Amino acid sequence: MSITLEQAEQLSEAAKAKAKEIGVPMNIAIVDAGANLVSFHRMDNAWLGSVDIAIKKAKTARFFDMNTGELGKLSQPGGPLYGIEHSNQGLITFPGGVILKDAEGKVVGAIGVSGGSVEQDHEVASAGAYGF
Amino acid sequence: MSITLEQAEQLSEAAKAKAKEIGVPMNIAIVDAGANLVSFHRMDNAWLGSVDIAIKKAKTARFFDMNTGELGKLSQPGGPLYGIEHSNQGLITFPGGVILKDAEGKVVGAIGVSGGSVEQDHEVASAGAYGF
Amino acid sequence: MSITLEQAEQLSEAAKAKAKEIGVPMNIAIVDAGANLVSFHRMDNAWLGSVDIAIKKAKTARFFDMNTGELGKLSQPGGPLYGIEHSNQGLITFPGGVILKDAEGKVVGAIGVSGGSVEQDHEVASAGAYGF
Amino acid sequence: MSITLEQAEQLSEAAKAKAKEIGVPMNIAIVDAGANLVSFHRMDNAWLGSVDIAIKKAKTARFFDMNTGELGKLSQPGGPLYGIEHSNQGLITFPGGVILKDAEGKVVGAIGVSGGSVEQDHEVASAGAYGF
Repeated sequence: MSITLEQAEQLSEAAKAKAKEIGVPMNIAIVDAGANLVSFHRMDNAWLGSVDIAIKKAKTARFFDMNTGELGKLSQPGGPLYGIEHSNQGLITFPGGVILKDAEGKVVGAIGVSGGSVEQDHEVASAGAYGF
Repeated sequence: MSITLEQAEQLSEAAKAKAKEIGVPMNIAIVDAGANLVSFHRMDNAWLGSVDIAIKKAKTARFFDMNTGELGKLSQPGGPLYGIEHSNQGLITFPGGVILKDAEGKVVGAIGVSGGSVEQDHEVASAGAYGF
Repeated sequence: MSITLEQAEQLSEAAKAKAKEIGVPMNIAIVDAGANLVSFHRMDNAWLGSVDIAIKKAKTARFFDMNTGELGKLSQPGGPLYGIEHSNQGLITFPGGVILKDAEGKVVGAIGVSGGSVEQDHEVASAGAYGF
Repeated sequence: MSITLEQAEQLSEAAKAKAKEIGVPMNIAIVDAGANLVSFHRMDNAWLGSVDIAIKKAKTARFFDMNTGELGKLSQPGGPLYGIEHSNQGLITFPGGVILKDAEGKVVGAIGVSGGSVEQDHEVASAGAYGF
């Protein structure tokens, strides 16, 4: 099972609502169980450089079935996964990528958000993931 | 002026409606006047390899303010633009990318569609561009 | 609105004048609101490796509407944006990229300078941005 | 000996004047004897996709000390250099790249132009190269 476009659209709507609530225009990407892009939305005036980052956050989360901020703790200098960002044509390992699980706990995709502080990015991504 | 996310969503909806009508799941990408991604949708069961193609079609159309099929006529072996696909980290020069113009005829972005035959791709992209 | 070539040429002239004043040959790149290159100048004897860095600095500043040195404070080991340089096919996050705003405060492009110390790069970029 | 920035600026001015005369906004790139970028100008409303093509044309011409259109005759299907565009991170082998020689016939750089038909591109590049 993987996330459908209809489900992705609902999660993106929830994320957009949270982004509007906190007043930060965001880039929102969702990938399926195969780590392939399902949907992407750039809100008006969101950072251009965050298009790629949002997509990479979603892919990174699904690549390792882990929220991106968790991976970032391991990829610091001296850490066990130092330099992992060089793989897969570029990973993003700071917060804003959140895995999506179905009712049975199986990973079915991931959401990546970029456009604000990492705390804001993670908050908006989590709002998107919540309804799932 | 460039296309807004709300406008992009409306065009994508029109494209999706046409894709459902002809029974072919499609990947639909929209870029703004700066050739930066605004929105992307992969319909359920659409080809995975068409994610990148849809995005490249939209960018290619805006890069040269020309529908991708027109460019493809010029890039054949022996043609004046043979090999242009090697630029810009990869172009797609067969049909399915259509430019978006405002009421005054100024290019404000482009739509790229991939998932069926090139005739189907062009038909769905044109349906998306029509409302604009 | 985006920066014109004529405006970019004027900013580049101002930057070159400052570079001559401090005696350091520089690479100077200017991008528009869509982060696409408008102009580039490499002064005689400026570092060859700085061609790409100047262009990446200009793009990075526009990608995040922030001077590159500000971004670099956030991307250090342990910082919130550690590893962001892996996105967008390579960012440069040390000083020398400066955003360009119009009279109303809207970002219309960015200038990137490379060829000396980061302090010199930033000084020359700022001289270019000043007249705008 | 290699081309200086001042010389590159003069050639670009000559090319721009020809582009205005024929009414086609162009992207104009100049590289030195080392095939490294010296200057670049995108005229207002010139194609965004031609930024990369103009630079690649200039590099291609200097890489092989041959105008790009000459190389394109050799890279057609069945030709001796078929597929050469895959090298050097992408070459452009249709007209618009012209080598620059000094008074003694030594190659000191190249100019690449993109934005119109290949005939127009070559005409503008040749106008730039003429004064040299």
